[in-house]
Amino acid sequence: MIGGGFGGLYATRELGKGRDLVDVTLVDRRNHHLFQPLLYQVATGALSPGDIAQPLRSIFRRQRNTTVLLGEAVGLDADGRQVLMSDGGPIPYDTLIVATGAHHQYFGHDEWMPNAPGLKTVDDATEMRRRILIAFEAAEREARPDVRRAWMTFVIVGGGPTGVELAGALGEIANDTLRADFRSIRPPDARIHLVEAMDRILPTYPPDRSRSATRQLERLGVTVRTGTRVVHVDDGCVRVEPAAGDGETEEIPTRTVLWAAGVLASSFGRRVADATGAETDRSGRILVEPDLTVPGHPEIFVVGDAAVQPWKPDRAVPGVAQGGIQGGKHAGATVLRRLRGEATPPFRFSDRGDVAVIGRLSGVTNIGWLGPFGRQGGLLAWMLWLGIHIVYLIGFANRIVVVVRWAWSFLTRGRSTRLITGSPLLPPIEEPEPPA
Amino acid sequence: MIGGGFGGLYATRELGKGRDLVDVTLVDRRNHHLFQPLLYQVATGALSPGDIAQPLRSIFRRQRNTTVLLGEAVGLDADGRQVLMSDGGPIPYDTLIVATGAHHQYFGHDEWMPNAPGLKTVDDATEMRRRILIAFEAAEREARPDVRRAWMTFVIVGGGPTGVELAGALGEIANDTLRADFRSIRPPDARIHLVEAMDRILPTYPPDRSRSATRQLERLGVTVRTGTRVVHVDDGCVRVEPAAGDGETEEIPTRTVLWAAGVLASSFGRRVADATGAETDRSGRILVEPDLTVPGHPEIFVVGDAAVQPWKPDRAVPGVAQGGIQGGKHAGATVLRRLRGEATPPFRFSDRGDVAVIGRLSGVTNIGWLGPFGRQGGLLAWMLWLGIHIVYLIGFANRIVVVVRWAWSFLTRGRSTRLITGSPLLPPIEEPEPPA
Repeated sequence: MIGGGFGGLYATRELGKGRDLVDVTLVDRRNHHLFQPLLYQVATGALSPGDIAQPLRSIFRRQRNTTVLLGEAVGLDADGRQVLMSDGGPIPYDTLIVATGAHHQYFGHDEWMPNAPGLKTVDDATEMRRRILIAFEAAEREARPDVRRAWMTFVIVGGGPTGVELAGALGEIANDTLRADFRSIRPPDARIHLVEAMDRILPTYPPDRSRSATRQLERLGVTVRTGTRVVHVDDGCVRVEPAAGDGETEEIPTRTVLWAAGVLASSFGRRVADATGAETDRSGRILVEPDLTVPGHPEIFVVGDAAVQPWKPDRAVPGVAQGGIQGGKHAGATVLRRLRGEATPPFRFSDRGDVAVIGRLSGVTNIGWLGPFGRQGGLLAWMLWLGIHIVYLIGFANRIVVVVRWAWSFLTRGRSTRLITGSPLLPPIEEPEPPA
Repeated sequence: MIGGGFGGLYATRELGKGRDLVDVTLVDRRNHHLFQPLLYQVATGALSPGDIAQPLRSIFRRQRNTTVLLGEAVGLDADGRQVLMSDGGPIPYDTLIVATGAHHQYFGHDEWMPNAPGLKTVDDATEMRRRILIAFEAAEREARPDVRRAWMTFVIVGGGPTGVELAGALGEIANDTLRADFRSIRPPDARIHLVEAMDRILPTYPPDRSRSATRQLERLGVTVRTGTRVVHVDDGCVRVEPAAGDGETEEIPTRTVLWAAGVLASSFGRRVADATGAETDRSGRILVEPDLTVPGHPEIFVVGDAAVQPWKPDRAVPGVAQGGIQGGKHAGATVLRRLRGEATPPFRFSDRGDVAVIGRLSGVTNIGWLGPFGRQGGLLAWMLWLGIHIVYLIGFANRIVVVVRWAWSFLTRGRSTRLITGSPLLPPIEEPEPPA
C-alpha cells in the first residue's frame, strides 16, 4: 500500500478485516493522514494543521496485521514484485495498491511555482497562510499607492472547488476577519480575482450551481474571471488573456498568487505507468481496468487521483475525496475476496454529491440522489457541508476541536489560527520610505 | 513598545487605559503573541501552534490608541529618541518600553545549535516535534542495534522548568502515547537523559521540590543527571563531564539533543545597553533602576527577561511569565501616572509562585503565599497548573480548544497533533540495509 491519503487509508482499513489472510504495509512520505478538503481552511487561518491531520500510526495502532512505514517510494520493479525506496531496501509485495494521488500543475511553466504556491500538504498551507497575512501587513506599512494596491490584490488561479473555496475564504478574511485590525488600510478594499480558463467555475457541477457560486463570490467582493487564461506569473504581476486566444493580454499587478489549477499524477504514479507500460491520460493518471487494476497486472491496483477510475461511459470519477475512499475500499475488498475465492465485481462509483462552501453561511451543493433538494445554494448548502466534513474527519478530538473553532469563528467572525510562521518573516521593501 | 511577549502585551494593555493621553505603537517581528509556558506542549505534540498563539492585531483590535506594526527593531538612537528598523524608516518615541525577552545560549558553542535546537518560537517547537517523532520512525526502520539505540536516546540539556517539562512530556510520549504504535521497537525502551550542571534540577525551587520532581521524572524513566556539564555536541553524540571538573568525560550516543539551558538577552536588548551605556549582567540583561527605567534614561523602560528586574536584596525577579506580566503592567502604569502628574512608586514583584508539570497527573508547585499548601507534588500540582495556564491563555477559543485537547489526551493518553512537517522528511540512512 503506497500512500496514506483517502485511497490508502480506506484500502488499509478494509484489509484490516482480513487479519488471518493478509499482512499490510502502509508506506507514506508523511507520518499523517491529511484531510485535504479542509486544507484551504488552514491556508486561510481558520484551522490549525493539527486539527485536520491524524498520525497514520495512531489510526492503525490496533490493526495488528498492519505496519506503517515512513518512507518514500521512488520506483517499481513490476516483474520482481518489489517497490524501490529512496532510503532503505526494496519492499516486496504480493499485491500492490497505489494511492499516491495527484497535485497541481503549472502547464509546463514550473518557473511560476515560487510565485504561485499550490495547496497539497500542511507545509503548503502554512506557506499560503503566511503569504496572505504578510500581504496585508506589507500593505499596512506601504505608503506608495500602487505598491500598496499590488499587496492588496490577490489572484487565485483555478475555478474548481479548491479555488472557489479559497476565494470565498479570502473574501471573508478581507470583509470580516481583518476589518478592524489595521489602521492605514481598509481590508475590505482588497481585490480578489478568481481566474478560470473554462467558461464557468465549478465545471463539474451543473451550470446553475456555477452561476449560484459566482453570485455568492461576487457578494464577497471576488471578481470571477472565467474564459481567462494565465500566460505569465512573476513576483509583481500576473498576465492573463482570453482563453479563446483572440483578445488582448491584460496585466494584473499583484504580490500574491495562489495556484489551484491543473492535475498531475504524483511521481510514483508515473513510475508505475513506466514500469508496467500502462496508458495514462494527459495528467499522467493511469487508465485502469474496471476492477481498478493495471492492464496485464492484476496484482497492482491504482486508486484515487493516481488513476482514471471508470464511472460513466463518457466520464471518469472526479478527483474528489469520495473517489479515493470508494476506490480504496474496492481495492481492499477485492484483495480479500480473491483470497477467499469469491467473485470480484468491478468497481462501481456511487456519486454522493458535491458541496462547496463560500464564506460564511453560504455555499453550493450538487447532490443527485437527493433530487431537487440536492441542489442548494446558500445556508442549506453551508449546513450540509458542515455535517459532511465533520463526519468524515478522522479522529474524535479533531472533530470536537474543529466544531469549537468553527462555532467560535461563526460567532465572532474571527479566525483563531492566523499565525505567520517560517521565513522570511517580512516582505522586502525595495525603497524604504519614512512612515507618514 | 518593542516586543509582543508577556511584557509588551501587558504594558500595551495598561496603556490602553490612557486613551486620551498616549498613542501606542507595538512593534514585533512576529504577528502573534505566543504563550511560551505551553510551547513545550507544541514541541511534544499535545497542542497545535495555533492553540497557544493569538494575533497581536486581533488582541488590540478594539484598543483604538494602539497600532500594531510587524517589523524588526535593530537599533536605538537614544539621543534622537527613535528606534531603527531593519526595513522602513526609524520610529520616533517619547517613551520607549523594551520587552524583547531572552533566548537560550550555548555558552560560546554556537556550533552546537544545529544539533541541539532550543525552544522559543513556533518554528522552534515544530522543529523539535519533527526531531522527536522522526527519531522514533528512524529507530523503527533501523536494524543495527547500536544505531537504533542512538535514535532511541534523547538528551535534554538544562534542568530549569522548560527542561523538566520537556523531559516529563518525552517520558509520557515514550511510555504512553506511542506505546502501541510501532512494530519493531518498544517506545518505553527510550532513554531520556536530563542534564543539569547545578547540583539539582529546578534550582529556583526549594530543595525538597527538586527532589520531588526528580522522583517523578525517574518514575517516567528519565535519567536525571545533575552536577553534569555538556562539553561537546555533534550529530551522533553528546559528551558530558562532572561540573566540578574532576571526573572523566562520558560519551552518550544520541541523535536527538534538545537545548533548554542558558539565558541570553535578545539582540535588541543588547543594542539598548550599547546605546545607553547601561550595565548588564553576564546574560546581557540590563540592570535597571527600581522603577525599571534605564539609568540616566527615565524615558526608556526595560521589562521582563530583557532586564534584571529588582526583587529581593540578594535576588532578581526570575525569568518567568509573571516577571514579564508584572514588569509590563508597571511600566505602562508608570507612563500614565507621569502624564497625570501622579507619584510613581518603584516596581514591586509579587511572587505568585511556580508550577511545573511532569507528565500525566503529576508536577511540583512552589507557591509561597499559600504556606504549606503551596508546596505540592503530584496530582494537586497538576490540577493547579491546569487552572493557572488556562486562565492566563489569551483568546477564548484557544482556551476551549486547549481544554478539549487536554481532556482528550487525558482520557486516551494520546496526543492529537503529532505531525511531522518541514524538511528533511526523513533522516538519512548511512548504509541502507534490506528490511528484515
